[in-house]
Amino acid sequence: MKQAIVARTDVGMGTGKLAAQVAHASLSAYEDADRRTRKEWKGEGQKKVVLKGESESQLFELADVAEREGLPYAVVRDAGHTQLDPGTVTALAVGPGRDNIVDKVTGDLPLY
Amino acid sequence: MKQAIVARTDVGMGTGKLAAQVAHASLSAYEDADRRTRKEWKGEGQKKVVLKGESESQLFELADVAEREGLPYAVVRDAGHTQLDPGTVTALAVGPGRDNIVDKVTGDLPLY
Repeated sequence: MKQAIVARTDVGMGTGKLAAQVAHASLSAYEDADRRTRKEWKGEGQKKVVLKGESESQLFELADVAEREGLPYAVVRDAGHTQLDPGTVTALAVGPGRDNIVDKVTGDLPLY
Repeated sequence: MKQAIVARTDVGMGTGKLAAQVAHASLSAYEDADRRTRKEWKGEGQKKVVLKGESESQLFELADVAEREGLPYAVVRDAGHTQLDPGTVTALAVGPGRDNIVDKVTGDLPLY
């Protein structure tokens, strides 16, 4: 099992900011998963991969695919206190879920 | 309330790697918190800050302080499949907890 987190490369986030947004997405999608999935993923060491996304529209398209695949997912918007405009979409987390199902959503994206 | 995640700057993690380790630490410390704390922090928007740490020994010292303050915390070791040697300590998450208590542990560290 794994979780894939897609972070936008086109909004100019610094490293710490990006890491916080990825963590936010990860936790929110985790909370969207059922108890059994959460337990299994944690038991396997909560594998995560961080991938590059290129636009807000791409993240929403991927979220739609995740929805259709029945995967937990979460889209994160920044509160905009620093660096970004309020409401900027920054990251999408998909899973935890089976590797091959998560790959149906994010398998074509490059590693961050 | 907030959660502070301290990531090491001295082990040469790439951006995506660092984000994954921060997310791992964040989720593990979250799971270490009691239900009421988790709920309150999420209700406030799960505020997170990512800070710079400089060594493994520093992270363990800060974890000791978190323990003494009664805060949830988690130290993350990398599985070492990529980039780092297996077992390398990469990140420490402290909280969620009251801002002033979290600051007792990590208040002197620079933003990442």
